[in-house]
Amino acid sequence: MRVGLIGSGRIGAFHARTLIGHPGVDSVVLADADAPRARAVAAELGADAVDTTDELFDAGPDAVVVAAATAAHAGLLLRAAEAGLPVFCEKPVAPSVVEHLAVMHAVEAAGIAVHVGFQRRFDAGYAAARAAVRSGELGWVHTLRAGTLDPAPPPAAYVPLSGGLFRDCSVHDIDAVRWVTGTEVREVYATGANHGADFFREAGDVDAGAALLTMEDDAFALLSGTRYNARGCDVRLEVLGSLDSVSVGLDDRLPLRSVEPGVEFPAGRPWALFMERFEPAYRAELAAFVQMAAGERESPCTVRDSLQTALVAEACEVSRRERRPVQLA
Amino acid sequence: MRVGLIGSGRIGAFHARTLIGHPGVDSVVLADADAPRARAVAAELGADAVDTTDELFDAGPDAVVVAAATAAHAGLLLRAAEAGLPVFCEKPVAPSVVEHLAVMHAVEAAGIAVHVGFQRRFDAGYAAARAAVRSGELGWVHTLRAGTLDPAPPPAAYVPLSGGLFRDCSVHDIDAVRWVTGTEVREVYATGANHGADFFREAGDVDAGAALLTMEDDAFALLSGTRYNARGCDVRLEVLGSLDSVSVGLDDRLPLRSVEPGVEFPAGRPWALFMERFEPAYRAELAAFVQMAAGERESPCTVRDSLQTALVAEACEVSRRERRPVQLA
Amino acid sequence: MRVGLIGSGRIGAFHARTLIGHPGVDSVVLADADAPRARAVAAELGADAVDTTDELFDAGPDAVVVAAATAAHAGLLLRAAEAGLPVFCEKPVAPSVVEHLAVMHAVEAAGIAVHVGFQRRFDAGYAAARAAVRSGELGWVHTLRAGTLDPAPPPAAYVPLSGGLFRDCSVHDIDAVRWVTGTEVREVYATGANHGADFFREAGDVDAGAALLTMEDDAFALLSGTRYNARGCDVRLEVLGSLDSVSVGLDDRLPLRSVEPGVEFPAGRPWALFMERFEPAYRAELAAFVQMAAGERESPCTVRDSLQTALVAEACEVSRRERRPVQLA
Amino acid sequence: MRVGLIGSGRIGAFHARTLIGHPGVDSVVLADADAPRARAVAAELGADAVDTTDELFDAGPDAVVVAAATAAHAGLLLRAAEAGLPVFCEKPVAPSVVEHLAVMHAVEAAGIAVHVGFQRRFDAGYAAARAAVRSGELGWVHTLRAGTLDPAPPPAAYVPLSGGLFRDCSVHDIDAVRWVTGTEVREVYATGANHGADFFREAGDVDAGAALLTMEDDAFALLSGTRYNARGCDVRLEVLGSLDSVSVGLDDRLPLRSVEPGVEFPAGRPWALFMERFEPAYRAELAAFVQMAAGERESPCTVRDSLQTALVAEACEVSRRERRPVQLA
Repeated sequence: MRVGLIGSGRIGAFHARTLIGHPGVDSVVLADADAPRARAVAAELGADAVDTTDELFDAGPDAVVVAAATAAHAGLLLRAAEAGLPVFCEKPVAPSVVEHLAVMHAVEAAGIAVHVGFQRRFDAGYAAARAAVRSGELGWVHTLRAGTLDPAPPPAAYVPLSGGLFRDCSVHDIDAVRWVTGTEVREVYATGANHGADFFREAGDVDAGAALLTMEDDAFALLSGTRYNARGCDVRLEVLGSLDSVSVGLDDRLPLRSVEPGVEFPAGRPWALFMERFEPAYRAELAAFVQMAAGERESPCTVRDSLQTALVAEACEVSRRERRPVQLA
Repeated sequence: MRVGLIGSGRIGAFHARTLIGHPGVDSVVLADADAPRARAVAAELGADAVDTTDELFDAGPDAVVVAAATAAHAGLLLRAAEAGLPVFCEKPVAPSVVEHLAVMHAVEAAGIAVHVGFQRRFDAGYAAARAAVRSGELGWVHTLRAGTLDPAPPPAAYVPLSGGLFRDCSVHDIDAVRWVTGTEVREVYATGANHGADFFREAGDVDAGAALLTMEDDAFALLSGTRYNARGCDVRLEVLGSLDSVSVGLDDRLPLRSVEPGVEFPAGRPWALFMERFEPAYRAELAAFVQMAAGERESPCTVRDSLQTALVAEACEVSRRERRPVQLA
Repeated sequence: MRVGLIGSGRIGAFHARTLIGHPGVDSVVLADADAPRARAVAAELGADAVDTTDELFDAGPDAVVVAAATAAHAGLLLRAAEAGLPVFCEKPVAPSVVEHLAVMHAVEAAGIAVHVGFQRRFDAGYAAARAAVRSGELGWVHTLRAGTLDPAPPPAAYVPLSGGLFRDCSVHDIDAVRWVTGTEVREVYATGANHGADFFREAGDVDAGAALLTMEDDAFALLSGTRYNARGCDVRLEVLGSLDSVSVGLDDRLPLRSVEPGVEFPAGRPWALFMERFEPAYRAELAAFVQMAAGERESPCTVRDSLQTALVAEACEVSRRERRPVQLA
Repeated sequence: MRVGLIGSGRIGAFHARTLIGHPGVDSVVLADADAPRARAVAAELGADAVDTTDELFDAGPDAVVVAAATAAHAGLLLRAAEAGLPVFCEKPVAPSVVEHLAVMHAVEAAGIAVHVGFQRRFDAGYAAARAAVRSGELGWVHTLRAGTLDPAPPPAAYVPLSGGLFRDCSVHDIDAVRWVTGTEVREVYATGANHGADFFREAGDVDAGAALLTMEDDAFALLSGTRYNARGCDVRLEVLGSLDSVSVGLDDRLPLRSVEPGVEFPAGRPWALFMERFEPAYRAELAAFVQMAAGERESPCTVRDSLQTALVAEACEVSRRERRPVQLA
């Protein structure tokens, strides 16, 4: 299989390595808005590079991976739909719900397979939590606690393009909650705060947020997010049930210090980066995409599925701005 | 010092033992609405017993401990105010905010010292978290996660008298959040659910609840509560800050199972009961009360202070019933 | 037919009169959050009144008209869906797209007929414009100009609840453009300004707005809106085509003054109020609802149809906030 | 005064008649790239003719009128600057912004008076609108609607030389908006479409366009243009303000049909041609030029002033091509 990969930044270069090392992939061709960067990455990894997206689609790919800037995702998905090619696309599908709906209709009309990249669905811990819920061993779930606490803010220039904390960060927790429980969100109440750099406030964004989600089965999911959690990259999910309670991310590298006397756990170097925390998951999701592109499996996360996640993130934004609970169903 | 102790149920009997073993206490006299129970406990511990509250106040106590049924607290505090005696009173001061205010005015007019029992203020972990916040080592606090998850429901008969999940259980988390951070709550949004026994619903109560509190410094406190958490009594507080993050209750007996590969923590027998989890704290708070009654320290939690905690719990109830955020300041 | 009417404010009382005078309506029962107001209106018109929405649904209505406060619409639609009753509901169906989607799924699952009130679909001018487009006599449409210019701002308290200028006012122009042309919107670019009272800005809203919509057939729709157009209530639609060009609202009461020498048109008293301008349309839409409720016609505007209109208004808000064109298809 | 007139096509011949009939003009000498055409026009009108531009400048003119092909404008302005003569020049000054700037620097260095021909500045309606804005009687302006809708496309050969719809047609609306309001444009978003003859698309041009301009005082100007508006030549400007609203072009020959019942306005034969619509304005602007050339008035539109208009048209083209808003200040 020949894979066209658009975007050769941090995550794009990482995906390039995964694809080149994959037995089901014969060749990889790269493009990037910064063409010399694509060529440099291609040269290092032994892949092909072209100068434009047009050339990439002309280069005869069997499948396309979109790891370009967020603003380009929707357009590239529409382009792939025209070309009739299977696509992997990093989240978000589009910067707004309106555009997400439009892309959904287009790719469904074209009948292409699309895999939207929520890498936590390929993390061993999240998968184990999902299995625990599904097996019934937790009883009913009364409470979920989810968080995505970044150690440091992104570049100021990224913030106005990010969609805001809930659409950019908490969306991963939202997707995880939906995927782990197999249940949709019925109501959200969300709020945000500005503690740090002025550029968040100037962009109408917040640097800390919290949301209380009520699931359709009346479980509560409590979400936390911040751009300022210097101890480390704290990504966890607790699923607390009537019969048993489990935690994803409770490991030796959890960036949390117990103040209880005599406790030395966690003792490892705290997770510093999102990509470090989820490196195996990122590899596994690309492998799944190759399978999907080869027709060997269904999409692990369709555009329609990711829309449900996006709607919840959107509802969080609406709730935060309008200071009221928002009903989803 | 002679201490009059009203109430000889589970917590009353426990306090009786603590008082009798305290070097600053010369004698203890017990009363209970169930007079034979008071006499039985007194006989076992080597204390005095009387048949009525009147007799207890006539028995010349230097201080009074109120561990009676919730409905009796306010009347006993007013009686102690009349008598001019220092009092320890289990929470809540009164079943409603209106009565709480009335008691506050009465005891302040009488000038008696009152210690309202929020035992977590005497728990080593909570105290360490408070010290961490106060030292500045956490930076600004962006998120607090607090929970009081009981393994099994109380007797059906207790539920209609309990004030509901937020006033009965979450109130401890609310007080802890206020005390650890030294900051008041500005807004609450709370919700509840019924998964278990019908008697909760029949009492207008819920068996699971969640609340999103916004503090005056824009930190978010996420509260969870349930009557059905069979793995154990899970009482924790995470304080997540811009510079460091700490956890109270992250110890080997935490009733939570990691699904991460290779993690064997926590490995101990999970906490099964509230009183087991906080036994040292209960002892320490009574010792503090004896000090206060002896004029050696200020009240660790005045009626006025506990009113702030009660107002937040009340706001959670209002929010839950009316499905809207409630502003406190 | 017995019709339950919820809301007895300005538009509710108007609908009450229309319903009572309608030969297909046997009786009308009113409810309002302000119960004495409902009783007063009912007494004046010879209708029944009840004190609560619950009582209204218990009063055996065959159909329900929702003219309550905006925030109540979604809940009342869900309630009617539960009861299996046909409903007329003033726009908007819900304050956010997320909630609109939720209501759509609920009413479609329940199978009830819902008529969402976009009254311009019953205005003679708009209907004539639609007929002109449909007949082909205009050739291709290259340009539409639509505007909703209010003479004076609404009460300050309404503004934070309004959803903003595009969702509150321009949404009527959006719906008219969709309905008249039979074509969907493909892209929007929108912007807004604050010239007048501070309370618009404080609510994150604008008091003037403009939008450039591109339709799926490449016609352009130029939208204008303001809260400050003292000459009068200027609501127009021009449909300019390759073969002919027509105007809705170009009549003697148009609040516009020609500066061309010798022109005395328009000469009438300018339209002062939205309800005056559309009074016949309001009557006609209720008559259509009675027909629909009697099973004699399809819904003139379903929840799904109104969602398309709402998505365009939402896209205008996104565009305005993020200062970029937003693609809808 | 002896006036040299370069260009004797439709507009050149019209200007020739105006000049010859003007009491301040003693003689007129014509040149044209098509020399026989110049001679024919001169013969008919009783003017002189020469064969080349060089001969025209040698023929001792006191002032020069440039009505040649667009591509020749800049060169002729530079030639007049060398000669130190006052010039009237049809718009555009130059085919590109770069060349426009070069001409501006040259004519300002030479100190010649240049009048760039935006004839609407001499139309009674536009002048009345400007007076209304300036008097304050409109209050603040919230919205302007401007349009230049031609009934039929120009010759195919003209299109590649036209600069495109925005620079060729909408530029008149842009200039009118600037001149009427006395305010500059801060941002533009523009878009275009192809409905008609293929030669527009082949030239990279569009046959319909729309633009949303935001002025520096936050008024919005909505521009429309098309080459296919068969009902007639529709050129209008609405200026809608907080206190009053006026319309230029709302007269009995407006090519627009009201669909409102009983309305018979406009009733005249619709304007068919640009030159017919603006004939009095064309005469008035040449009269103003003669005054300027005689030193009796300032330029009604300098090269510097027209550059501002050209920059907005250029921004529309950039916006249309790159599908993004363009900031001008």
